[in-house]
Amino acid sequence: MKFSNYFLKTSKTTAGDDKSVSAKLLKQGGFISESVAGRYYFLPIGHRVQQKIMAIIKEEMDAAEYQEMTTPILHPLELWKETNRTNTTGFELMKIKDRRDVEFVLGGTAEEMFVDLVRQYKSSYRDLPFHLYQFSPKFRDELRARGGLLRVREFIMKDGYSFHKDEEDFKIEYKKMKKVYSKIFKRLGLKTEIAESDNGYIGGEYCHEFIVESDFGESKYFVTKNGDYASHEDVTVFQKEIKNKDEKQKPLVEVQVERGVTMEDGVKFHKLPLWQQIKDVLFMDNNGRFILAIIRGDLDVNETKLLHLIKAVSLRHARDEEIREKLRSEAGFISPVKIKNNLDKNVELIIVADDSLRTIANGYGGSNKKNIDLMNINIDRDYQPDIEGDIALAKTGYDAQNGMGKLIEKRGIEVGNIFQLGYHYSNLMKGATFVDSDGKEKPFYMGCYGIGIGRTMAAIVEIHHDEKGIIWPREITPFAVHLLSINSQQLTINNKIKKEVNKIYKDLQKNNLDVLYDDRNDVRPGEKFADADLIGIPYRIVISEKTLEQNCVEIKKRGEEKVELVKIENLLQFLELNLKN
Amino acid sequence: MKFSNYFLKTSKTTAGDDKSVSAKLLKQGGFISESVAGRYYFLPIGHRVQQKIMAIIKEEMDAAEYQEMTTPILHPLELWKETNRTNTTGFELMKIKDRRDVEFVLGGTAEEMFVDLVRQYKSSYRDLPFHLYQFSPKFRDELRARGGLLRVREFIMKDGYSFHKDEEDFKIEYKKMKKVYSKIFKRLGLKTEIAESDNGYIGGEYCHEFIVESDFGESKYFVTKNGDYASHEDVTVFQKEIKNKDEKQKPLVEVQVERGVTMEDGVKFHKLPLWQQIKDVLFMDNNGRFILAIIRGDLDVNETKLLHLIKAVSLRHARDEEIREKLRSEAGFISPVKIKNNLDKNVELIIVADDSLRTIANGYGGSNKKNIDLMNINIDRDYQPDIEGDIALAKTGYDAQNGMGKLIEKRGIEVGNIFQLGYHYSNLMKGATFVDSDGKEKPFYMGCYGIGIGRTMAAIVEIHHDEKGIIWPREITPFAVHLLSINSQQLTINNKIKKEVNKIYKDLQKNNLDVLYDDRNDVRPGEKFADADLIGIPYRIVISEKTLEQNCVEIKKRGEEKVELVKIENLLQFLELNLKN
Repeated sequence: MKFSNYFLKTSKTTAGDDKSVSAKLLKQGGFISESVAGRYYFLPIGHRVQQKIMAIIKEEMDAAEYQEMTTPILHPLELWKETNRTNTTGFELMKIKDRRDVEFVLGGTAEEMFVDLVRQYKSSYRDLPFHLYQFSPKFRDELRARGGLLRVREFIMKDGYSFHKDEEDFKIEYKKMKKVYSKIFKRLGLKTEIAESDNGYIGGEYCHEFIVESDFGESKYFVTKNGDYASHEDVTVFQKEIKNKDEKQKPLVEVQVERGVTMEDGVKFHKLPLWQQIKDVLFMDNNGRFILAIIRGDLDVNETKLLHLIKAVSLRHARDEEIREKLRSEAGFISPVKIKNNLDKNVELIIVADDSLRTIANGYGGSNKKNIDLMNINIDRDYQPDIEGDIALAKTGYDAQNGMGKLIEKRGIEVGNIFQLGYHYSNLMKGATFVDSDGKEKPFYMGCYGIGIGRTMAAIVEIHHDEKGIIWPREITPFAVHLLSINSQQLTINNKIKKEVNKIYKDLQKNNLDVLYDDRNDVRPGEKFADADLIGIPYRIVISEKTLEQNCVEIKKRGEEKVELVKIENLLQFLELNLKN
Repeated sequence: MKFSNYFLKTSKTTAGDDKSVSAKLLKQGGFISESVAGRYYFLPIGHRVQQKIMAIIKEEMDAAEYQEMTTPILHPLELWKETNRTNTTGFELMKIKDRRDVEFVLGGTAEEMFVDLVRQYKSSYRDLPFHLYQFSPKFRDELRARGGLLRVREFIMKDGYSFHKDEEDFKIEYKKMKKVYSKIFKRLGLKTEIAESDNGYIGGEYCHEFIVESDFGESKYFVTKNGDYASHEDVTVFQKEIKNKDEKQKPLVEVQVERGVTMEDGVKFHKLPLWQQIKDVLFMDNNGRFILAIIRGDLDVNETKLLHLIKAVSLRHARDEEIREKLRSEAGFISPVKIKNNLDKNVELIIVADDSLRTIANGYGGSNKKNIDLMNINIDRDYQPDIEGDIALAKTGYDAQNGMGKLIEKRGIEVGNIFQLGYHYSNLMKGATFVDSDGKEKPFYMGCYGIGIGRTMAAIVEIHHDEKGIIWPREITPFAVHLLSINSQQLTINNKIKKEVNKIYKDLQKNNLDVLYDDRNDVRPGEKFADADLIGIPYRIVISEKTLEQNCVEIKKRGEEKVELVKIENLLQFLELNLKN
């Protein structure tokens, strides 16, 4: 491709204040351009990269005998009602009506569509397992788009769905998918860690994220030093060491206190350990219920864990006046003890206790009355949680379970996910069954698997760049070779150089090498070099009067300093050798 | 691909009452499946065909140095307001709001998006021309979906947009695009005619349709015998022969009549030629204006032509009571003569005359009063049209213009379009300019070009099939070879056959032949043969105990009767030879 014919516009700056390197470089390099926040054009050179990423994914998926197809983009809302996802997705879901008032969802994922397709046909155990996938646009009505392609409102996703006769068969697939995805990301130039993660609104019992470590990533996750454990913070579990659990229970007493409303104020006043204090955090959920989350004083609450326990979609902190008026309690003095005795009639309150409260005895904290604290609070005896479980936030230095070592916090970009779905969808969607060998109809056991293409492209740039621009990995570079003609004397390239470069350009093309040929006549050499660095094609070949005097071209590998003179007659051989490695 | 692993479900019937062969065969062959009316799944084998069609289009587009990219699917409504297309597209446009109340359009075409992208960058005359295209989902909120993939509400379109410095340069492109598209359709196995057509809501001054002749097509178009002329009925022009135009004008008189309300009733009563009668058709347009279309009595009105003249989006016939109450006229007796004298104050009436009224003198017709006709009506003297032009419906047997011969009506499927856009979009969208060699900013001169992928697939099946199923053209067949193992004795294929067929299957794959191998164990030979015919892969290879006795396979070309026995050792050579031709 000749630069002068190519719709490729580089720039030295970007309009937005892009904090992410990938956003900055992809925009400046002319790969992408924003339409409105979170919605992007993929310009011809950016489209080439996206296509190469998709081609690698397709190659590996097809090699694993998975089958590509497509579903409509508008999903009938009826299907999402069958699985109750209209209620569990929150605001991210975009809906649209047609002229006949039929409602549709702009899909964020497509479980319902694939199940609806599959249940149109009779399947037998002999047909199982099968794994269908598509590349298709996905929509997320995100509150905030950020980081260029890292968090967008519209993107291409490779989403796949597998159907199995039972859990055993699914587990083979899940293991296989870990390998397939790892191989894909490796070919894409990404080192990924596979972390247990939260399934969001997808459903199912467990799932894993493929994370590329990066300070700019949105995913906070934990690993152990020996690599035995990796998990997203929302599902990270850790050892909650036993404190004074076995201490003799003392009588509950009220004491008058003069203290502020923070945990530290309590510690200071009572001169007791932080861990012995009971931490109370009051929320309201999307169903209008008050949620009192209680936890050992030295720990914090992870809201995602809490949401799962109470089966809700979103939380907000309760306001002081709500605490006073609806719960007859007092901010800074909330207590699970007897809080339900004084409730306003229409108020629903759910007490959720972290299991760390089983590691202490004789806790202390508020009394639901201002300036009065309770001492020697004990679970079961003094308060009875509605729900008990793990709602604790993991932190660096905590002990992982089963002696795997200390947790270490990392940040990363989530580029892929795999989900066990089990019977979640096949139970909710009538007719999602197959006939087993015993002649009985049974629900499918399912899994699903996704890779965000744009985010993967961004992650590659976050990893592969330097201060001058992008350094594309071999398999996904938009072009293999960046050919430059320069003339030190003047802007206009003279005919002799032109003729030589054209010949080389055609030769390379004839040998199936993708070449970007910067033939621009009105651009200074310095600018051409800067563009070559910015765009990031692996091999830069410069031809000038000087190199021609020696029948040579000058070759530089992007990301390396070394410049080599290579005889024109040896160029093809040189490239073929180097591009293979 | 082994049939037993493939998500491929054929059926002997289809649920809907599909009148189109392509809908029936594509559904029965397991290529597509309907989600809701007009929205389709492309199953793995259908997806393969769609991908092959797209690959051919891409090959030819890239060979012409056009550049693929993508735009977001949600188009900001603001852009469509700039070009006023929110008002001109009628009901077909689907709109959606995000959580921040920003409005978007689900694009039917993407002119605004491409112009908006291009105007983000500075372009100079040196950058021109360029031609950008994409494959992307398009949405049309059609009142009625029909014919499987022939008229749908959601489909993939290859849409391209070219930018030029002037009309001269555009004309070169337009000519080139006719060739590119003709070549594409030829490779796809389609013979297309290029007909002048109506530009719908796209804008611009002229455009052409690529039509595949088919009785099931929705496009009615006209050609001349010598092939010099082809045009869609909505733009077909014809010779309106001079009648008694030069006859001396006689005085206008009112006569009492006893007749029905049809044209024939008028002819019978007055014993004058039909062509001398003035035909009045009264409409209301989408802006609430009455439109009186008048035309020579022997001709009919083409509503699309009329819409263009009055610059409106839709029409409906006026109702009798509206004619009486609002226009103070009478159905069956409407006349352009003095009709404006009695109008209700708030009524807007536009009189549109077909130019055929200039070919007659002393016409006759109604008087806006019941049972009174006017005789000797003459244009200009007795009535003054607000708009004059061509609103006449073409019919077989009419004379084409410039002595090209008689018009012949045909029906066909519109598979592609090319549009001159001129300055339509660049004038409406601020900043859609380039800097010309004289240093001045000038608007782009534009064109756009589209191919509907699904409809093209349907057209291919409408043309290439027989009573047993599809007959895929070589370049887009989902597989090159359909391998069948059968056992005349029993359902289960014995191990000897299995081993041999597996060997052949692997051999063919190794030689880069796409093979569908019907390895199903529980299916009778007759059913396998029927499926092979239905699915329509060019070469069917059968291996049975009988053929193995002779070390042979049995080869049959789809669509031909001849069955050949070919030695296994010669199979590859046979296929390579035949698949090349």
